[in-house]
Amino acid sequence: MIPVGLSAPHHDGSALYVPKRPAALGDQIPLFVRVPRALGIDQVALRYIRDGEPRGVQAKIDRSTATDDWWLASLPVWNPTVSYRWVMAGSSGAYLWLNGAGVFARDVVDADDFVVSLSSGGPDWHLRSVVYEVFCDRFATSGAANGTPLPAWAKQRTWGELPTGRGPATPHELYGGDLPGVQAHLDHLDRLGVNVLYLTPVFPAGSTHRYDASSFERVDPLLGGNEALAALTKAAHDRGLRVIGDLTLNHCGAQHDWFTTAKADQLAPERELFYFDETLPNGYESWLGIPSLPKLDWSSPELRRRMTAIAKLWLEPPYALDGWRIDVANMVGRFRELALTTAVASELRQAVEDKLLVAEHGHDFRGDLLGDGWHGTMNYAGFLRPVWTWLRGTELPEELRRSFWGVPVGLPCLDGFAMTETMSSFRAGLPWDRVLHSWTLLDSHDTARFRTVAGSRERHVVGVGLQMTTPGVPMVFAGDELGLEGDFGEDARRTMPWADPGSWDTQLHEDYRALIALRRSTAPLADGGLRYVHVGEDAVAYLRESPEGRVLCLASRAAHDPITLDRDLLDAAGLETLSGGEAADDGALVTLPSDGPAFHAWALT
Amino acid sequence: MIPVGLSAPHHDGSALYVPKRPAALGDQIPLFVRVPRALGIDQVALRYIRDGEPRGVQAKIDRSTATDDWWLASLPVWNPTVSYRWVMAGSSGAYLWLNGAGVFARDVVDADDFVVSLSSGGPDWHLRSVVYEVFCDRFATSGAANGTPLPAWAKQRTWGELPTGRGPATPHELYGGDLPGVQAHLDHLDRLGVNVLYLTPVFPAGSTHRYDASSFERVDPLLGGNEALAALTKAAHDRGLRVIGDLTLNHCGAQHDWFTTAKADQLAPERELFYFDETLPNGYESWLGIPSLPKLDWSSPELRRRMTAIAKLWLEPPYALDGWRIDVANMVGRFRELALTTAVASELRQAVEDKLLVAEHGHDFRGDLLGDGWHGTMNYAGFLRPVWTWLRGTELPEELRRSFWGVPVGLPCLDGFAMTETMSSFRAGLPWDRVLHSWTLLDSHDTARFRTVAGSRERHVVGVGLQMTTPGVPMVFAGDELGLEGDFGEDARRTMPWADPGSWDTQLHEDYRALIALRRSTAPLADGGLRYVHVGEDAVAYLRESPEGRVLCLASRAAHDPITLDRDLLDAAGLETLSGGEAADDGALVTLPSDGPAFHAWALT
Repeated sequence: MIPVGLSAPHHDGSALYVPKRPAALGDQIPLFVRVPRALGIDQVALRYIRDGEPRGVQAKIDRSTATDDWWLASLPVWNPTVSYRWVMAGSSGAYLWLNGAGVFARDVVDADDFVVSLSSGGPDWHLRSVVYEVFCDRFATSGAANGTPLPAWAKQRTWGELPTGRGPATPHELYGGDLPGVQAHLDHLDRLGVNVLYLTPVFPAGSTHRYDASSFERVDPLLGGNEALAALTKAAHDRGLRVIGDLTLNHCGAQHDWFTTAKADQLAPERELFYFDETLPNGYESWLGIPSLPKLDWSSPELRRRMTAIAKLWLEPPYALDGWRIDVANMVGRFRELALTTAVASELRQAVEDKLLVAEHGHDFRGDLLGDGWHGTMNYAGFLRPVWTWLRGTELPEELRRSFWGVPVGLPCLDGFAMTETMSSFRAGLPWDRVLHSWTLLDSHDTARFRTVAGSRERHVVGVGLQMTTPGVPMVFAGDELGLEGDFGEDARRTMPWADPGSWDTQLHEDYRALIALRRSTAPLADGGLRYVHVGEDAVAYLRESPEGRVLCLASRAAHDPITLDRDLLDAAGLETLSGGEAADDGALVTLPSDGPAFHAWALT
Repeated sequence: MIPVGLSAPHHDGSALYVPKRPAALGDQIPLFVRVPRALGIDQVALRYIRDGEPRGVQAKIDRSTATDDWWLASLPVWNPTVSYRWVMAGSSGAYLWLNGAGVFARDVVDADDFVVSLSSGGPDWHLRSVVYEVFCDRFATSGAANGTPLPAWAKQRTWGELPTGRGPATPHELYGGDLPGVQAHLDHLDRLGVNVLYLTPVFPAGSTHRYDASSFERVDPLLGGNEALAALTKAAHDRGLRVIGDLTLNHCGAQHDWFTTAKADQLAPERELFYFDETLPNGYESWLGIPSLPKLDWSSPELRRRMTAIAKLWLEPPYALDGWRIDVANMVGRFRELALTTAVASELRQAVEDKLLVAEHGHDFRGDLLGDGWHGTMNYAGFLRPVWTWLRGTELPEELRRSFWGVPVGLPCLDGFAMTETMSSFRAGLPWDRVLHSWTLLDSHDTARFRTVAGSRERHVVGVGLQMTTPGVPMVFAGDELGLEGDFGEDARRTMPWADPGSWDTQLHEDYRALIALRRSTAPLADGGLRYVHVGEDAVAYLRESPEGRVLCLASRAAHDPITLDRDLLDAAGLETLSGGEAADDGALVTLPSDGPAFHAWALT
């Protein structure tokens, strides 16, 4: 039997287990693993890799609680990235491996090992943040563009109308949201409690999503131009808000002068920035074959020079963005036999110095996060999708009944085991800081709205509870907090109903405020370790633990059998309610509420 | 419930499922997956990666058997290595992913996907082979070295005496085995039925294992010199035997003139071949810190030029080796921040053209086998160790009670589930041909003898049965077939008892001959797919299937409950015994023998 919950040995990359980060190659760092004595383990060893060769070192008991021993071993950090795992044995025949994917009673591959990386984990402020995504055309309008001639492609729409969602006009429906409009609503962000503003692209383009930039060197006049961005970031910074931009490294728009020049003249220096090839459908490679999005060739030194300079330009005054979300990061630098993604990420990170880089990535991002590149990812695969499959309602939008981003079958309904195992498997094999710096998101401008997926406010709030307490930085798509709906990405890009407060789900808004406040005021939720203490079909309970405190969380999608936890194993004097209801404590057992859908959180004292 | 055995959907990289290999980037290849209809699956789709982005394509039923549907989809091979997996759904809520690690009822990471690689899989003759490892000093002596002055380091030992195994003299115990000695015993290889001779290093060195070469440019005179190697390979080739050498790319001996020159003169061109660094214990990096084995620096263009030339030299007439086993391949090119292993492997493969490259690798080799480098590996992690943990006797040598190659706890005793899951996990995420070209070995000159680990001839034979029928190329360490014992690598390097036929385990020898003959005469064992049809604590049954035939194998370590297989699901007219006992067939169920330890094999007709 594989031990689970509080009865299982545990280690993760958080400070209780890895109290010190390596500063230089050759450093030794102490590592701890907690092992319940009831398992009958009398030998614990650390197994790690040095220059490709496995090594073993025996651990020793450092200290003990009433139920657990804390074993200590020293890890030599000989390579920039060192993978390790624990092995345990007992005279009764016990034989367990503990790696990032969990506990195994057999030999395991190295791919899910714990990982220590010499490269730093990204800006600390990011870990203390909740991010708020603004899709620029749909958030708020100031009329800044009044007087700017409407581009030929634009179809003017009226604020409050639903986007048509599907059709030739979809990318061209211009509602007129702009940066001064965002600036005028910073109070809304403050009130919600978020502290990072993430803006979708602000460069001029041939669409309202603006991922088809016609320039990376100026802000779209329709959004208010360069001055509006400078004013917005200044206003945001003055309030203590950070601002993240959105950079497309994989492609630009077909109207970008790099591309028009390259297309017109085979001898132009811009020619090498793209993949021209007459065997391809349009004579050049483009994103998913869409001709308006020509793909950039990162094997070109000239492209690397230009894009690196652009990445830096907007991080400097007067714009002073605090970092970038990197669009389609999973495809950047990948083309046929070229696989430059991690090299590009590394080069960008060196260029942006201490600013943030978060990669869009829709599937297994682990290989792309091992080096010294992106700080984190948008965690669709290891957070959004497992939450959706667990919390989805019975009615799903047509699209989700058919497919989801490269998964060509409908969104299934899975249990709590599937959710937590999936989440764990996507955390495994990564440095812990990469997990912490990745965005836990319930939706984005590219997906259905979570409210539509969840099907009820009650389940929606459980999702927000998971979002605010699962390792990672929460990212809220503007309008989620008001209960906006949408069946798919384009349909979800609805305008914020500023003029119609009666349409707001004010209860949901208050729930968001409370859970965001919980997240921001509770240190272990920013960087604490994660231990699942109960996993059932309908309910999942877990601890977030750090030297600064311990939090117990319970998420349920339906009423469920009572959950009892051994008080000794829980090792707490008491439970103080942070969110939701009380836990019963009879001195021997702690009994958690059995209601649902519900989210609860308690501080362990 | 996850379906298992014949009730599970199945795909692997063998010809029944991947009938055609891609010839060039951009090719489309057909892929099949078999799905039992009882699972209620009505949608099957292929999910694959193109330039870092997941794509999905619906599969269609191509044909059906009484119980299964064979679904077909077309895979575009856009990148040199394409990973893919299958997803299945049913109106009853069924939701299954099938990847190289098995069937999962939840979302999975990409790391265990099936993989198609554009690079070829290695020489076909290798797949039809059984390899025989000869440790040159201990196999047979011709007296060729008579007259050659004994090196100062050598301690002359008498043939038949046990090596001392542990002690300062261990690497210097010279028994005087030589290449003419090997040549004189080629009849023994023929009679055993093996067809590839793998020779441990033949270069002059400062030890009897010769992994500390003092030259890569001549054969040790103690072994008979260059002429003896040329004569041996010619004699072997004349009999239809191939010959594999052993090349140390990670290090050379401290007596090698490259190193002595480099050490003596900081300005010598040889200086860049090594890692000189005053902060290191001996002033330079060496294998596991042993000063006699200075590590080679593959970031040096000069080293790459020299070693590549050497790798080619011995593959050409008159030596004409058929390939190399690469020593310590897992460490080659890895040092602190340098990670050149796959680049070195790729360069070597280009250099050796159509010859074989098999990498020594003691743990998770998967990342090192993804590119266009090594054809395969010595499968310690995914074959030897799982077999040992399942078949080990109750008495273990002291060393195995403490540790095993980087696993710092004693060798456990695990069940058939642990064995098969471990094997499957090390096959996952690899192109199928890399699995086929890897060596299934029960021991080597670096481990205890399998006879000692297994503790009985009966269990030993079960191990040989697994070795000859598990995907991979079997490698037999000379003397195993006679029942030689040994507690650890150095102790296991015992001389062949040519003069003492009474000491031979002749029954074991006959069992080896029969199982090697089975392997070499049964096409599906060389390249057929693998389906586990029964996994229990003490018995494991599996199918090897190819367009050329189907074989059912049963390995048991003890008597066990009868195993019955549904005849319809097995889809066979009858069973013809190839090895071991009869299977009972009542028309509805096939019942396999319940004896043990035992190995059985049947051809399905």
